[in-house]
Amino acid sequence: MKIAKPIASLIESFQRLPGIGPKSAQRLTYYLLHVPQSDLDAFSESLSRLKKDTVLCSICRNVNEKDPCEICSDKARDAATILVVEQPLDILAFEKTGKYKGIYHVLHGSISPLENIGPDELYIEDLIRRAKGKKGGIKEIIIATNPTMEGEATAMYLGKKLKEANSKIKITRLGMGIPTGADLEYADETTLIQAIQGRREL
Amino acid sequence: MKIAKPIASLIESFQRLPGIGPKSAQRLTYYLLHVPQSDLDAFSESLSRLKKDTVLCSICRNVNEKDPCEICSDKARDAATILVVEQPLDILAFEKTGKYKGIYHVLHGSISPLENIGPDELYIEDLIRRAKGKKGGIKEIIIATNPTMEGEATAMYLGKKLKEANSKIKITRLGMGIPTGADLEYADETTLIQAIQGRREL
Repeated sequence: MKIAKPIASLIESFQRLPGIGPKSAQRLTYYLLHVPQSDLDAFSESLSRLKKDTVLCSICRNVNEKDPCEICSDKARDAATILVVEQPLDILAFEKTGKYKGIYHVLHGSISPLENIGPDELYIEDLIRRAKGKKGGIKEIIIATNPTMEGEATAMYLGKKLKEANSKIKITRLGMGIPTGADLEYADETTLIQAIQGRREL
Repeated sequence: MKIAKPIASLIESFQRLPGIGPKSAQRLTYYLLHVPQSDLDAFSESLSRLKKDTVLCSICRNVNEKDPCEICSDKARDAATILVVEQPLDILAFEKTGKYKGIYHVLHGSISPLENIGPDELYIEDLIRRAKGKKGGIKEIIIATNPTMEGEATAMYLGKKLKEANSKIKITRLGMGIPTGADLEYADETTLIQAIQGRREL
């Protein structure tokens, strides 16, 4: 196929990324041929430093520059409430709301027997240790795993384990129902059932 | 927004790529946190070497490791036919067909007054020199710029200039019409008009 090696190897690297197929990988690579070398160097540097310059927070397992992370070490936050998410990216979503003032715990995945991911592959033991830890320190754990089959299974598992670990903590799951701005007409049945079950008084 | 700097800078680099928005950039970056460091290093190396290890072929201006490039230095190819394309990526498309045996010329863009790209910003002078060069050496120049407004304008300009430079060379433009596998019902008017004008005897 007569593609020069330096080009072919970059195409291959792009192609390994999720959601980027062979055509997009080619387009991105040829686009970068027109970009100044300084931009390429900056991109290259960010890539190689990504994991070297970040650590997992020893408390919440979020990816951060510092340990403990900025959120865990922020005294203004409510350390009595932990919101449990699957991925560090989920924290961003909650932080953007600006309304959640508690702290987090990142599992780095969800229980998935099909992919051979059991509870031991996730940071579940750490969460249970946090729940047991400070007597009366933690008041509520909000389980915010994704509303997928794996996320729901993880939520069920966590609910059971956390209650065993410390029965005084209130364990909750994110509210389910119609998202803002959605059209009822297009909502799926499961979402509608969840919305009826989770109805609130006005 | 409490994103660690190493993560934020990679998100920014991804976001500068065409077709990658803020959400995709975030998703790609957080995906790479789970990838082995060796893969990150390979990706990083490919990026920084992309332009350092490639040169523009002094004959056809294709991006390659060698000068002259593999195609120009391939004795088996028909050096009497030049196919003119806008981008190096376009060469790949023609090479994949396996049917074109001539050589190429890459303009690295198209004439676009709106973006301040005139003939002097492209490798047009080089093409004219090639046309003038070998007396009787080049028999045909196929203009394969994109069927966009800019591509058509470039084709018109090239046609005029090349005829002035060497009236013995046959100047052609890629055939226009219905693409294979297309549905006539959904073809636009311009394409249909082109298809009628370009009709062939059976």
